[in-house]
Amino acid sequence: MTAVEPLSGIPLPAPAGGEPYLLTPGPLTTARSTKEAMLVDWGSWDGEFRALTAELRRRLVEIAGGGDAYDCVPLQGSGSYAVEAMLGSFVPRDGKVLVLMNGAYGQRITRTLGYLGRAHVTLDKGDYLPPRGHEVGAMLDADPAITHVVVVHCETSSGILNPIEEIAAATAARGRKLLIDSMSAFGAAPLDAATLGYEAMVSSANKCIEGVPGFGFVVARKDSLAAAKGNSHSLSLDLHDQWAVMNKTGQWRFTPPTHAVAAFLEALRLHALEGGQPGRLARYTRNRDTVVAGMRALGFETLLGDRLMSPIIVTFFAPADPAFRFDRFYALMKDQGFIIYPGKLTVVDSFRIGCIGQLDEHVMRRVVAAADQALAAMGVATAAPPSSALDERKLQAA
Amino acid sequence: MTAVEPLSGIPLPAPAGGEPYLLTPGPLTTARSTKEAMLVDWGSWDGEFRALTAELRRRLVEIAGGGDAYDCVPLQGSGSYAVEAMLGSFVPRDGKVLVLMNGAYGQRITRTLGYLGRAHVTLDKGDYLPPRGHEVGAMLDADPAITHVVVVHCETSSGILNPIEEIAAATAARGRKLLIDSMSAFGAAPLDAATLGYEAMVSSANKCIEGVPGFGFVVARKDSLAAAKGNSHSLSLDLHDQWAVMNKTGQWRFTPPTHAVAAFLEALRLHALEGGQPGRLARYTRNRDTVVAGMRALGFETLLGDRLMSPIIVTFFAPADPAFRFDRFYALMKDQGFIIYPGKLTVVDSFRIGCIGQLDEHVMRRVVAAADQALAAMGVATAAPPSSALDERKLQAA
Repeated sequence: MTAVEPLSGIPLPAPAGGEPYLLTPGPLTTARSTKEAMLVDWGSWDGEFRALTAELRRRLVEIAGGGDAYDCVPLQGSGSYAVEAMLGSFVPRDGKVLVLMNGAYGQRITRTLGYLGRAHVTLDKGDYLPPRGHEVGAMLDADPAITHVVVVHCETSSGILNPIEEIAAATAARGRKLLIDSMSAFGAAPLDAATLGYEAMVSSANKCIEGVPGFGFVVARKDSLAAAKGNSHSLSLDLHDQWAVMNKTGQWRFTPPTHAVAAFLEALRLHALEGGQPGRLARYTRNRDTVVAGMRALGFETLLGDRLMSPIIVTFFAPADPAFRFDRFYALMKDQGFIIYPGKLTVVDSFRIGCIGQLDEHVMRRVVAAADQALAAMGVATAAPPSSALDERKLQAA
Repeated sequence: MTAVEPLSGIPLPAPAGGEPYLLTPGPLTTARSTKEAMLVDWGSWDGEFRALTAELRRRLVEIAGGGDAYDCVPLQGSGSYAVEAMLGSFVPRDGKVLVLMNGAYGQRITRTLGYLGRAHVTLDKGDYLPPRGHEVGAMLDADPAITHVVVVHCETSSGILNPIEEIAAATAARGRKLLIDSMSAFGAAPLDAATLGYEAMVSSANKCIEGVPGFGFVVARKDSLAAAKGNSHSLSLDLHDQWAVMNKTGQWRFTPPTHAVAAFLEALRLHALEGGQPGRLARYTRNRDTVVAGMRALGFETLLGDRLMSPIIVTFFAPADPAFRFDRFYALMKDQGFIIYPGKLTVVDSFRIGCIGQLDEHVMRRVVAAADQALAAMGVATAAPPSSALDERKLQAA
C-alpha cells in the first residue's frame, strides 16, 4: 500500500521487564532509549534546554514541509488541549467553522467550539464514512459566512484516514482556511504544508513520532500566528502568546514537561533514522497488513474496506459467538503481553488494534497468534461478526 | 524554624552522570528512583494505570487533610493550567474575585481572570510585602459583591510565604470562598483543608512532592466540584467535567502524561518515607537556613527578613560591585554543578536559590562554597548589595 520499501527485516527489541506491548493509538510502546532520555532533570530556564526546544520546533516544521512560511508552537498538556488552542487562537470570535465529523474526535471539536462560543456547522458522516471534497465544497458554496474548515486526519474511533487532499483543495478553492487535527497521523501519513496550504495542524508527542505524552504541538502559518493576537479564550491555551514569548525568550511561558521534551528529541532522532515520515509509514503499513491478514484468517472482519483503512489503528467487529466477551478477550490478550483497545462505535460491538509505536510485523504476527489462543480459551467457534453489523455498514454506505 | 527534628544526617545521593543540581523552584532535582519509574510505558485505559490514578488522588487528599469533604482532580498541563482551571471552574460567570498580589504569580492570576472575563479587584502589595488578614477583611467588608478571594501561598518571585491562616480566617468570617495557588508550597508548608476550609487549592507534580512536570492537581470541596458544572470557559480546563468522568470511569478524559504519573507515585512514596509534609518541611528548612547563613557570611543580603522567608526559594540582592554580572555568575555556578535562578523583582537586580528537590544541607554548603569561588573568579570584592536596594525595601516596608 506504499511505494516505500521496508528498511530492514531486523526485529525491534521487545519492551523491557516483560511489560506488555501497547496496541493503542497513544500512549504507545516507545523505544528504550526514548524513555532513558528521561533519566535527566533539566532546568527549564537553562540554555541547554532552550536548545532542545529550538531543535524540536525546527524539526517539526521540517517534517511538516512548512519551510519559512510556517512555525511550530509546542504546548503543554494533552493533544486535545492543542486542538482547543488551535480553535481558540485561529478562529476569530466572529468566525464560523465547518466541522467535518465521522467519529469521537470530530464530536469533541464540536463540543469544544460550544465552550468557546464560536459559531459552527457540521457535516456528520456517522461512524466510518469519509467527508468528501465535493460535499465540503457544496457546504462552503451554500454558506459564505464559514471562515474555517476543521477536519480530523485519522479518526481513530474507526481508524479511517480521511481524504485530506480533496478536502484541502475544496477549502482552498473557496478561499477558506483549513485546520487539521492530525493527532494520530502526523509523522507517518504525509501532510505536506506547502502542498495542502493549511492554516494550522496539530499533533502530539505520543503518537507517530513515538514520544511520551506530556505536550502537543501546532504547526501553523507565521502570518496566522501573528494575526491570532487577542483571539484566545484562555491564557494557558493562547498559541499567539506562547509563540511570541517562545520566539522572544526561547522558553515555554509556563513550566514545560522537561522530561517528555528530552524524550521527544530522542524519538525525533529515531524517526529520522528510520527514514522520516516515509520510513515510518512503511513500517506501520506492514504492521497493519500483517495484523489485518492474520485476523481475517481467524475469521475477524474489519469495519473498513482496504481503501479507507489507515495504517494507524484498525477496528474489528466483535464476533457474533456469545462465548466472546470483550473484557475476557482483553485479559487473555494482556496475559500474552498485548494491551488492545476497546471499540468506540456507536452502533455495533467492536475492538481496535493499533499499528503505531515500537512494533513491527514480527510483533503483529504474535498478536494474531495470541488472538487465536484467546478465542480458543474462550471457546469461540468463529470470529465472524453478527450479520447485523455488516448489514448496518452496508446500509450506511448505501 | 520548625519543631520537627532532622530525620537523619545521611546525605542524599548526587544526581547521576554529573548533571547539575537544579536550585530552581520546579522543575527540580528528583530522586533517581522517581525518574526510573518512567522507564515503563503504561496503557492509559488499562486497569493498572487507573489504579495509579486512584492512588494518586487518594494520597493528595490525605496530604491536604481533606477527609471526606474534599476530592482531588489531577489535570494535564503545567501548574498555571490548573490555576486557570480552578478560576474558570469555581468562579461563576457572575462572580467577583479579590486577587491578593505580591509578585508575578498574583499578576498572572489577574491576567487569567481578564481572559476569562471574570470581574475582579486586586490588593497589590508590590514585590515582597504580605497581604494581611485585616486588609482582606476591610476590602471584603467594603464590597459585598466579592464572592472569592485568591491568594498565592508561596510567591516564588520573591520567595515570600504569605500568611494564609489570617487570610483564610478573614475570608471565612465574611462567608466568602478562598482559592489558593499553593503551587510551590503544597507538600512542604502546612495547608490543612479542615482547618483553613478553603474551597480549592492547586499545586503541581514538580514542586514539593518532587515529581517531574506534566500535570497539576486541584484539591477541592466535593460540593464545589459538583456545583461547578457549566462554569468553565474551556473544555480542556473544565474541572467539573474532568472530575465527573474520572469518578465514573477511573480514567483521565484525555491522554494523561502516563510516565509523569508513574513517577509521581514513586515521589509520593518517598514523600511519605521522609515523614510526609512535616518531614519535608524540616529538610527544606535546613536547606534554607544553611544557604542563607552561608551566603550572608559571604556578604550577600536577602530580600526578605527571616519572618517572611519561605523554605522554598530565597531571593538575594545582586552585589553592588560592578564586577558582578549575573550571566557570568550563573555560568560559574553551573560549571560547579549548580543551576540557579534569575531574579524576578521589578525594581532591583537579584537572583534566587531554590531549597526544594532532592537537596540537603550538605549540598547547600557546597552551593555556598561554589558562590564563594564564583565571586573570586569574577574579582568581586564584596557581595553587599547597593544601598539603593536596601533603601527601596525600607521605603516600601514603611
